[in-house]
Amino acid sequence: MPTSIAYLGPKGTYAEAAALIYASLLKQETGQESELHPFPSIALTLEAVTHSKTDCAVVPIENSIEGSVTITMDSLWQLDMLQIQRALVTPISHALISNAEKLDAIAEVHAHPQALAQCQHWLAENLPTAQLIAANSNAEALKDLAERPTIGAIASQRAADLYNLPVHAHPINDYPDNCTRFIVLSRETSPGGNHTSIAFSLTANRPGMLLKVLQIFADRDINLSRIESRPTKRSLGDYLFFLDLEADAREPSTQEVFQEISACTETLKILGGYDIAIA
Amino acid sequence: MPTSIAYLGPKGTYAEAAALIYASLLKQETGQESELHPFPSIALTLEAVTHSKTDCAVVPIENSIEGSVTITMDSLWQLDMLQIQRALVTPISHALISNAEKLDAIAEVHAHPQALAQCQHWLAENLPTAQLIAANSNAEALKDLAERPTIGAIASQRAADLYNLPVHAHPINDYPDNCTRFIVLSRETSPGGNHTSIAFSLTANRPGMLLKVLQIFADRDINLSRIESRPTKRSLGDYLFFLDLEADAREPSTQEVFQEISACTETLKILGGYDIAIA
Repeated sequence: MPTSIAYLGPKGTYAEAAALIYASLLKQETGQESELHPFPSIALTLEAVTHSKTDCAVVPIENSIEGSVTITMDSLWQLDMLQIQRALVTPISHALISNAEKLDAIAEVHAHPQALAQCQHWLAENLPTAQLIAANSNAEALKDLAERPTIGAIASQRAADLYNLPVHAHPINDYPDNCTRFIVLSRETSPGGNHTSIAFSLTANRPGMLLKVLQIFADRDINLSRIESRPTKRSLGDYLFFLDLEADAREPSTQEVFQEISACTETLKILGGYDIAIA
Repeated sequence: MPTSIAYLGPKGTYAEAAALIYASLLKQETGQESELHPFPSIALTLEAVTHSKTDCAVVPIENSIEGSVTITMDSLWQLDMLQIQRALVTPISHALISNAEKLDAIAEVHAHPQALAQCQHWLAENLPTAQLIAANSNAEALKDLAERPTIGAIASQRAADLYNLPVHAHPINDYPDNCTRFIVLSRETSPGGNHTSIAFSLTANRPGMLLKVLQIFADRDINLSRIESRPTKRSLGDYLFFLDLEADAREPSTQEVFQEISACTETLKILGGYDIAIA
């Protein structure tokens, strides 16, 4: 049976590009074949794997310009059953795609909110009066273009080719060094690897307590590649913390650290140990 | 001359409610009158004060459910000339407003992306097929309702009253304890107060370095009420950090701490010292 991979579809999204990279890694490393299944939102992509409709899901977690994808982080905290299997870093290069004859004939730009944010300066300068409309994915936004020449969409050059649509400008990202980190999630225990992600709430509602946790990692010479806070949604000023560690969760020394920090955390979740692939 | 206050308009936004609170604090504390000026986006609200069109601006920085308002944080880092004068915490209670006869006649919901995110479960359950459209502000979304009964908007009960529009459901927030922290920014040096906000990038591109900075605060018994990272937009994994300190920047001991941490930071910005008002 091929491995079924859920991703934020339809075909042509950056998530599909990441899912294809994962499929080729699986093939290389284990000989295993894969099958890609598009879903219309990140929430439904995650639901596919929690409800056992697919074996795994590929979802974005962080973009180098816009920062965290908050729905993915909030879901990682809420969905206890999912573990990170792998991280994938892919470059993002946006194109403005439309059937309009001229740029100034575009009255609306449809795209995923992160893509709109990543091109905000370009849009303000080149299409100052266009209405910006949030779509579930960039590729979904392409669907309406054929019939309506007054709308534009933001997606990859590959998506424009797939849907046979003209590109008006490329790249239109405000910052050239734009890439997104995706994670592969499944119901299986994570394989372990050079990176480990954890998340926790603190026993005392004071981010000063965070220092104790960070000190434990420093004492063991474990470097942190990322630290991020999210609201607990209980009250303003009450946070969860997400840490990415350069440590292998399979090592007994790492397990000892988890024991130690569980004494200063209210809830500690080990989100997974995995390797990172850079496309 | 009254103090001119820029806010994310039009009338009826939560930002207007925060600006009104600030105006009444100014009146109470100094006898000073104010004049409110609406702007169509957070970016233009901030531009009004940087370009001296208004004396100050009231902008959201953090919501208890959705977390940081990233455009405000990124602007705080980029706009060196603005200082925080005050923080204001206001409750958020969303209503679904529409001229539709029935809920299921609503085909589109227009609102600010943060409001759409804060009501995402309610919308998925009650209006699963409605298209969600990002507006510059919730109150702006109300403007189209009069003519188009198939669209709905998310805004406050007060906004519905102001524009004389019917409320279909209230509250529709997914989490009841929802509030937003606004900050008042101006070109003047901040007044000082119980809270101080700083932001910095690190000399070594390793969040492990962050520990050194946190340790300095811990050694001086300065509590942190918030720690947040944002991408530097240089490359993935390279972050800025925003800290809120429970310390008065006017105290010589706080100034000494800033001296000390400037040795481990690449760029250190003191965003302001101020008091917090809770509505």
